[in-house]
Amino acid sequence: MLIQPGDLLKDVNTPEDLRKLDRKDLVRLSDELRQYIIDTVSVYGGHFGASLGVVELTVALHYVFNTPDDSLVWDVGHQAYGHKILTGRRDRFHTNRTYGGLSGFPKIKESKYDAFGVGHSSTSIGAALGMAVASEYKKEDSHHIAVIGDGAMTGGMAFEAMNHAGVSNSNLLIILNDNCMSIDPNVGALKDYLTDITTSGAYNRLKDDMWKVLGKISKFGVNAQEIMSKVEASTKSFLLKHSNLFESLNLRYFGPVDGHDIDHLTSVLADLKNIPGPKILHCVTTKGKGFALAEKDQTKWHAPGTFDKVTGEIHKKHVISPQAPKYQDVFGNTLLELAKQNEKIMGITPAMPSGCSMNIMMKEMPDRTFDVGIAEQHAVTFSAGLAANGMVPFCNIYSSFMQRAYDQVIHDVCIQNLPVVFCLDRAGVVGADGATHHGAYDIAFMRCLPNIVVAAPMNEEQLRDMMYTAQMPEREGAFCIRYPRGTGVMPEWQTPLKEMQIGKGRLVREGERVAILTLGHVGNYAVRACEKLAEEGVYPAHYDMRFAKPLDEEMLVEIFENFDRVVTVEDGCLPGGFGSAVIEFMADKGYSARVKRLGIPDRIVDHGTQAQLHRECGYDTEAIEEAVWSLVGTEAVLN
Amino acid sequence: MLIQPGDLLKDVNTPEDLRKLDRKDLVRLSDELRQYIIDTVSVYGGHFGASLGVVELTVALHYVFNTPDDSLVWDVGHQAYGHKILTGRRDRFHTNRTYGGLSGFPKIKESKYDAFGVGHSSTSIGAALGMAVASEYKKEDSHHIAVIGDGAMTGGMAFEAMNHAGVSNSNLLIILNDNCMSIDPNVGALKDYLTDITTSGAYNRLKDDMWKVLGKISKFGVNAQEIMSKVEASTKSFLLKHSNLFESLNLRYFGPVDGHDIDHLTSVLADLKNIPGPKILHCVTTKGKGFALAEKDQTKWHAPGTFDKVTGEIHKKHVISPQAPKYQDVFGNTLLELAKQNEKIMGITPAMPSGCSMNIMMKEMPDRTFDVGIAEQHAVTFSAGLAANGMVPFCNIYSSFMQRAYDQVIHDVCIQNLPVVFCLDRAGVVGADGATHHGAYDIAFMRCLPNIVVAAPMNEEQLRDMMYTAQMPEREGAFCIRYPRGTGVMPEWQTPLKEMQIGKGRLVREGERVAILTLGHVGNYAVRACEKLAEEGVYPAHYDMRFAKPLDEEMLVEIFENFDRVVTVEDGCLPGGFGSAVIEFMADKGYSARVKRLGIPDRIVDHGTQAQLHRECGYDTEAIEEAVWSLVGTEAVLN
Repeated sequence: MLIQPGDLLKDVNTPEDLRKLDRKDLVRLSDELRQYIIDTVSVYGGHFGASLGVVELTVALHYVFNTPDDSLVWDVGHQAYGHKILTGRRDRFHTNRTYGGLSGFPKIKESKYDAFGVGHSSTSIGAALGMAVASEYKKEDSHHIAVIGDGAMTGGMAFEAMNHAGVSNSNLLIILNDNCMSIDPNVGALKDYLTDITTSGAYNRLKDDMWKVLGKISKFGVNAQEIMSKVEASTKSFLLKHSNLFESLNLRYFGPVDGHDIDHLTSVLADLKNIPGPKILHCVTTKGKGFALAEKDQTKWHAPGTFDKVTGEIHKKHVISPQAPKYQDVFGNTLLELAKQNEKIMGITPAMPSGCSMNIMMKEMPDRTFDVGIAEQHAVTFSAGLAANGMVPFCNIYSSFMQRAYDQVIHDVCIQNLPVVFCLDRAGVVGADGATHHGAYDIAFMRCLPNIVVAAPMNEEQLRDMMYTAQMPEREGAFCIRYPRGTGVMPEWQTPLKEMQIGKGRLVREGERVAILTLGHVGNYAVRACEKLAEEGVYPAHYDMRFAKPLDEEMLVEIFENFDRVVTVEDGCLPGGFGSAVIEFMADKGYSARVKRLGIPDRIVDHGTQAQLHRECGYDTEAIEEAVWSLVGTEAVLN
Repeated sequence: MLIQPGDLLKDVNTPEDLRKLDRKDLVRLSDELRQYIIDTVSVYGGHFGASLGVVELTVALHYVFNTPDDSLVWDVGHQAYGHKILTGRRDRFHTNRTYGGLSGFPKIKESKYDAFGVGHSSTSIGAALGMAVASEYKKEDSHHIAVIGDGAMTGGMAFEAMNHAGVSNSNLLIILNDNCMSIDPNVGALKDYLTDITTSGAYNRLKDDMWKVLGKISKFGVNAQEIMSKVEASTKSFLLKHSNLFESLNLRYFGPVDGHDIDHLTSVLADLKNIPGPKILHCVTTKGKGFALAEKDQTKWHAPGTFDKVTGEIHKKHVISPQAPKYQDVFGNTLLELAKQNEKIMGITPAMPSGCSMNIMMKEMPDRTFDVGIAEQHAVTFSAGLAANGMVPFCNIYSSFMQRAYDQVIHDVCIQNLPVVFCLDRAGVVGADGATHHGAYDIAFMRCLPNIVVAAPMNEEQLRDMMYTAQMPEREGAFCIRYPRGTGVMPEWQTPLKEMQIGKGRLVREGERVAILTLGHVGNYAVRACEKLAEEGVYPAHYDMRFAKPLDEEMLVEIFENFDRVVTVEDGCLPGGFGSAVIEFMADKGYSARVKRLGIPDRIVDHGTQAQLHRECGYDTEAIEEAVWSLVGTEAVLN
């Protein structure tokens, strides 16, 4: 289905075209751009609310600034659809997030207008500052703009970058896109602060008013003057310099302005262009702006899938019924179930209560669940603090976001051997979100640490049992459970909770000649591969190892005593991963076997469906069959 | 040498003893405690200035609060010597930082008074908040105190934790120990802000004064009242609530107070004890307080080694002359040398200009070097921004601190394939700083990523050549060079700079039967081991592989074609490390050899000298000899 752009938009193929428009046409262009996003996303899916919220800002930025010479860094990048459409990618925009198509996020290699690749939160200020400093050094007269949401602003690295920006002289403009939302509503003291600035409405008049008062009062009696001189000497200059959070960090603060008033926005931005040095514009927007339902339920419409743009009905995904649940829901429900039995359990999520389904527990036990905002580092160290005071925290962080709390896992949890349970949702390739979001490295970066268990369930029952096992009394150290995005395999998933022996694998299928060792959900591919191979007279054994650490050494001895051909399969990177752990054991114990390791190859993997990527990377059912064939050669059929 | 405590201190073996003292005796006790620290550190070495700066604070906290039921988290922990001495460890304090002795940092397993183990910066607020929330949940009436320096406050996770604390009701007290120093002088906008609060001297009178003005003015003419009503309605309440950075985050702010006035400190703390909820006390101290030279040159006296406490002469370490330089100085001098030749080079350090010797370049090229404060995440993303705009950044971060910027390495550098050079100082075991500071995991967590080179020099010349190679034009992707703490092996280190072929190893010594493959400085142990073995008629070959990624596959083929017994040696963790990379290659290519991997074992390694720890972990000269013997058995001597 071809999406038709409006009359103005159809001739705007680049920001250069946009800048030729009359300023009075920008309202109409914004409307057309918004409609184009609605038309496309309703048919092809993708992120929705964020881009609708910044339509006017996107148009205004490209209109006022000289992109790509002036550089634009979109924090996270969910909101950059309008930017993509205006920067030469309108005709390919329907391929967004599909295999071989456009990325859902800005990406340097995709366009010269994408100054910096994004996906994870809170990187834009530091990156734009780096660019600005480089331009300053090169004596380029250019502007560098970071557009960052109020949610992303809670990420510590944004603060680190502001602390640095405040002492630089660079032409850095931070646009604080304040819509009170991450994917879920924002939390934390900063949010309350921003709401206060915005609702008091008059922060931007504060300093003017102060000056007026101080001016007027000097006309009156001696008493007042006396006080005033004290006030002025000691506090006025301080107040005027620092009375705002951002000004405390020496960033000139402007706003708040209405982010949907394009006329005002363009004039403010044009003014700011002439003010050198680091500065911040506080811009208030509505996520989902212009699509009533999306404005109303912003979490639901963050990335709704395809929908009827007239009725607003969200299309159901085609499913085979009875459907197995999403892993995240098995996590969410099981966590609540466990928390009812074990009063020491606490739930911690960095801004993903709906994404990881911790909202199930949050609803029933608000005092035992903590959404700490986009703040993975704090989520882990806060969990460590809870554990140090006797609690059993379940800290759920997407695998790729856990990269941001790596030091905290090592320094605050593993070194201290504290019983913190890490549930890593979205482990392995995640599909449409692509390179920045794949949970590719966690097995490797977790299993190299001491005092940690690294487990991956093959199905819902195992996820439940691993969670149950992780919270048993007196257990020490980190317990990391990684599971994939999407649905599992057990429609009847509510199995009784059982303790699992830590570090014990499971024989799935006896066999001969070749042993297939799987970790996690890819075991299901191996099951099907074994079935298909059996039809052709090949009968490999299949072991579901369940733990990358500790390894089931007893089982591995059995395997290496009986098989000289082994296939390992994982939904994780090959260097240093589960297969690597298996061959470490093999080498350490002096065994020798032909081992073929299947997993994510040593290169950046882009987006596509999970199945497409499993295929591309070579660890789906077919790939396992091929690996077994390559090890048995033609010998099997001949026998 | 036995250090004698003063008359009061000798009877204070626990905080319980301290709390029995009369408040008027606390000045004297503080003096005795300070003297005890001076007496001990001058003889035994260790961190110095930080603990001197918090003597009064330490005494006051233990006096006012009911430790260990009230918990005390020392951020970083350099400053906790007084705390250790007051909490039952005085008699063992001279063993501080030595093999088998006390840790230089607080540690849960060492004492019930150490509420949380520390070492890395900025963790205390999150950890103490976790404990406070747990206490609240358990309905315990206890206090949780984080003592954090103004340097550590720039670390993003501190901000993340404050953002969370501000919306909690927990009994969290944050003590901001403001001494304007990390190890080097602090940088950034926050520092300027704190200086402003402190030097204006009157921030704590601001609100009172405001009220007074607003009261007085209402007595005057209409004009003023009109303005006032506007001001009051829209800005007064905002101002009063939020006029301070910390109050913006909903933390009640108190101070600044003089951190050396113990009488005032104890009363302020006693008052704060009765104020529920999260709060911050801004406490101004002098690093090195009470030892004039240390007050004057705070960086030098951060950890001076042993010294004459009367003359202040710092003892020279016993060295063999002509001494090889420290690796950090080779880095620092070479960076400047390269930067003179390549105008694209920039230097970035998170608060370690003297620690990594980037101060050498900083002095000559202040506009091309950036100390971004304790902010590893920002250091990396800022570097990525510089690289995206054409620069070649050299970002120097200690190996164990690099754990804190892992996501930024992946997301902002590797995925985008940007040419950022990471120099990881203090890689491998670091010695006296112990578990929190060992750079044990970097080979494993870096080599699992795509678009990265992982290199380790065996000597100074290689470090220089690797740096030279990393900055060559048109090179893409991350280039990680890891090197150890301490001195190298080449007194004549100023070798000509040469390009090194990336991923090429080097045959150090031809040999037979066993091949020793080393990565980095441990190659020097292998050289000695080969010499000693040769004396006994065993002649292993030695290959200095130089790169963990990419591996020298050609060389490995040669090795595995010619040797069926291999030893790998690295100053890094065994799971997933360099040796693991070698056996991955072996397995992938279908080779089979007996491989013995030497490196840091899969457990937490405590402190000691580097040599002691290399011995303990089993990868020093002797260990390599033993490994070779174990592979050749008695065969060698028999032949």
